[in-house]
Amino acid sequence: MFESAELDQKISKEEFARREPEIRTRLLQAQQRIQKAGLPVLILLAGVEGADRSGVVKRLNEWLDPRYLRTHAFWDETDEERQRPYYWRFWRCLPARGETAIMFGSWYTRPIIDRVFDHMDDNTFELSLQTIKTHEQMLADDNHIIIKLWFHLSSNQQQERLAEKKRAGKSPTASLFKKFAKHYVNFLNVSERALRSTDTASNPWHIIEAGNRRFRDLTAAEIIAHRLETALEKPRPAGVVSTLPTPAKNLLMGVDLSQSLPADSYVELLKKYQKKLAKQVWQAKDQARDIVLLFEGWDAAGKGGAIRRITQSIDARLYKVIPVAAPSDEEKAHHYLWRFWRHIPRNGYITIYDRSWYGRVLVERVEGFARADEWQRAYQEMNHFEQQLTQAGTVLLKFWLHISPEEQLKRFKEREVIPWKKHKITEEDWRNREKWSAYELAVHDMISKTSTQSAPWTLIAGNNKSFGRIQVLQTVTDTLDRTLGD
Amino acid sequence: MFESAELDQKISKEEFARREPEIRTRLLQAQQRIQKAGLPVLILLAGVEGADRSGVVKRLNEWLDPRYLRTHAFWDETDEERQRPYYWRFWRCLPARGETAIMFGSWYTRPIIDRVFDHMDDNTFELSLQTIKTHEQMLADDNHIIIKLWFHLSSNQQQERLAEKKRAGKSPTASLFKKFAKHYVNFLNVSERALRSTDTASNPWHIIEAGNRRFRDLTAAEIIAHRLETALEKPRPAGVVSTLPTPAKNLLMGVDLSQSLPADSYVELLKKYQKKLAKQVWQAKDQARDIVLLFEGWDAAGKGGAIRRITQSIDARLYKVIPVAAPSDEEKAHHYLWRFWRHIPRNGYITIYDRSWYGRVLVERVEGFARADEWQRAYQEMNHFEQQLTQAGTVLLKFWLHISPEEQLKRFKEREVIPWKKHKITEEDWRNREKWSAYELAVHDMISKTSTQSAPWTLIAGNNKSFGRIQVLQTVTDTLDRTLGD
Repeated sequence: MFESAELDQKISKEEFARREPEIRTRLLQAQQRIQKAGLPVLILLAGVEGADRSGVVKRLNEWLDPRYLRTHAFWDETDEERQRPYYWRFWRCLPARGETAIMFGSWYTRPIIDRVFDHMDDNTFELSLQTIKTHEQMLADDNHIIIKLWFHLSSNQQQERLAEKKRAGKSPTASLFKKFAKHYVNFLNVSERALRSTDTASNPWHIIEAGNRRFRDLTAAEIIAHRLETALEKPRPAGVVSTLPTPAKNLLMGVDLSQSLPADSYVELLKKYQKKLAKQVWQAKDQARDIVLLFEGWDAAGKGGAIRRITQSIDARLYKVIPVAAPSDEEKAHHYLWRFWRHIPRNGYITIYDRSWYGRVLVERVEGFARADEWQRAYQEMNHFEQQLTQAGTVLLKFWLHISPEEQLKRFKEREVIPWKKHKITEEDWRNREKWSAYELAVHDMISKTSTQSAPWTLIAGNNKSFGRIQVLQTVTDTLDRTLGD
Repeated sequence: MFESAELDQKISKEEFARREPEIRTRLLQAQQRIQKAGLPVLILLAGVEGADRSGVVKRLNEWLDPRYLRTHAFWDETDEERQRPYYWRFWRCLPARGETAIMFGSWYTRPIIDRVFDHMDDNTFELSLQTIKTHEQMLADDNHIIIKLWFHLSSNQQQERLAEKKRAGKSPTASLFKKFAKHYVNFLNVSERALRSTDTASNPWHIIEAGNRRFRDLTAAEIIAHRLETALEKPRPAGVVSTLPTPAKNLLMGVDLSQSLPADSYVELLKKYQKKLAKQVWQAKDQARDIVLLFEGWDAAGKGGAIRRITQSIDARLYKVIPVAAPSDEEKAHHYLWRFWRHIPRNGYITIYDRSWYGRVLVERVEGFARADEWQRAYQEMNHFEQQLTQAGTVLLKFWLHISPEEQLKRFKEREVIPWKKHKITEEDWRNREKWSAYELAVHDMISKTSTQSAPWTLIAGNNKSFGRIQVLQTVTDTLDRTLGD
């Protein structure tokens, strides 16, 4: 979930100076129109300790019109607050129509902290997230614009900030800060759960990389400006948030496509992992753990080849491969998830989906087969679906097979020439190719919103087929190692 | 919540014979149009054991076109089902577009039963209700019409049915049935929680009195016909369910307005309860329990008088009375619940609302100040609000002061004559009077949907002022007795 905020994005002083006047104008104009339209705005600042949210607050107070802006911090509970229900403090600070409230800390703070330090059990935590969802939905139903910003730092970046503060010798919260750095992984896991459960179509989370302060503040401001501007656009179907501007860097850019594997190591590794997998699937059967593997990727990225390397090593009684093409009449007559539920394996068995439910937010989004409100709420629907699988004990792995556009072109041309591959290339493939950047954005959003601890995405470097296949096999066997134990 | 299904409603053989052809025609026509429109329909049959849902199934199969109808029972888990996530069995039975699935038992069955027999803890139960809500919302977003029918029997009626079955000597589930009768109260409490948490504007529950089979079947059929017909009406704002036909009997009809109290008993009882209350509020202060009392009722029903009888006996430092009239400018600029959150008492203190948030589903509904989607989702919003109060330890009591229209007329005329009461009667009061039956329905719906174990409504018989005031005082002191202990 936080992968999209570890791309090491930076903005130089010069670029910042150039872009600042423009974003300030946009913010002020949007704010003025919001004020006239009488819409209440909540800006929630959350994130990793050390991301310097107070720096963001300062900047926003500088850039926005202070007459319609109030900042609220929730770091110390007053007597008055302690003696009333938890949400009373937030109702007190609710902005009036046309006003903006910046909330430094929010209804997320207490549940996340209590869960990290184990003062709250898992079910109570999940319930408090549901309460948050209900609360936010109620406000959204009443035209509140809720902009939820999550500022992320990698573990290393957090350590650096800690050192920085120490040198400056000025942090009043240094002890808490240290405590947090210690609990970094746990904090991130808990936060991921919180974000995933509350990332809805009408109240989405925006994850912002906070390593570079200029990038952080400009990105935050752009998201705010964009959300305000689109909230003013009418008519818009209920609950649709128009897409954000394409990020300068996306997740796929982080994949090192130059990686490859010499032929002899390939044969050796293939043998090794296939042998291991052949054993593991019987172990899984014994332990009644079912496995779902899901493959998405560019046309000609090698999904079929990767899947075959897996099935070669598994007893045919244990698995099914479900190729997902255009839905049948019967499938079309049902909810779009129905066709995937059909093939959910029984305990101990394996289902491999060659393409999957993610078509909803890939091809259906890009080609306009699904309306914006449909694909936007699909992220939550798919997370909910996968949560049901993993809670029932399913091992779920998701692969995106990545190649460069140049490599794709090479393979397309090959296919046209080689007789037994000719059937694999169609007019549609060429058409899809033209929409490369639209797909790239869709993949980026998909992975940001649905890669979770219990159902992670793995990006496979597929330019070199051997390398890609081994990466897939290794990911599967490593995961089964961890899951099945000895 | 189930009060509305204990009004002893019956339909005679003659009436049934007369109405049957009409409802069958309506059902078939609606079903045909639904089939053409390609909308999937789910009819969930739930309720108290002994309500004879299989009788309803038989009738529906007779009345609806069987070509587009399938009935699914979920009473025994198969191997196949046990080895997959819980919802797999329901996805299997999901109707295709244009088809109708009658679900005898549903996703509600297991959580309710597990909670009643204590195989599931409270938090897990609440979470499973949230999962249900998410699941149903997902289907509704995809145009599924979900008709949730709850068949209710009073405890006595259930006992009668048990005896009936015994005499017939034919019940295969007699043992389970007996077990249920034993757990009647617990079952009802758990079910109330389930219904309250999942009674949303787009997927509402319909509670049906099942004591008389003819009434039960006709009512069920009418609800189904109505839901199908309104689903076909376009355009309709998302999530709005048009109101059901006015019930023949409503909750207010059950109030015995002839009850009264002679003057001397009144004085004696008043003294007794006021003395008791004066003590109890200090006890509550000691225990840091806060108290919220809320009064709604017809114009001139005696809200002010009843409130004064309470405040007379309480130390002035402990309570606030909040008269709720038209909202201030500042209040108007916020969410409608904001003005009520403002006055939530601290631990140990008391807030008395003279009129309340229920204005949303009373005057705002009847006068059209709130849109249909707004007041329909308000029931959930208010339940959620009150749940936050009671979970934080608040004692919450809600009173509806009832009088007959004749009594109101008498009091209005009095007010016009007596100089010091003249200011209390306005043009508006006379106008409201003309909408008596619209208000009656709104009150009926309000109480059905928001009277809960932890925040119950009490209907006060107010034709005799003395009687009403004592009833209020007694309800408050009795509740505090139970809540505060010794």
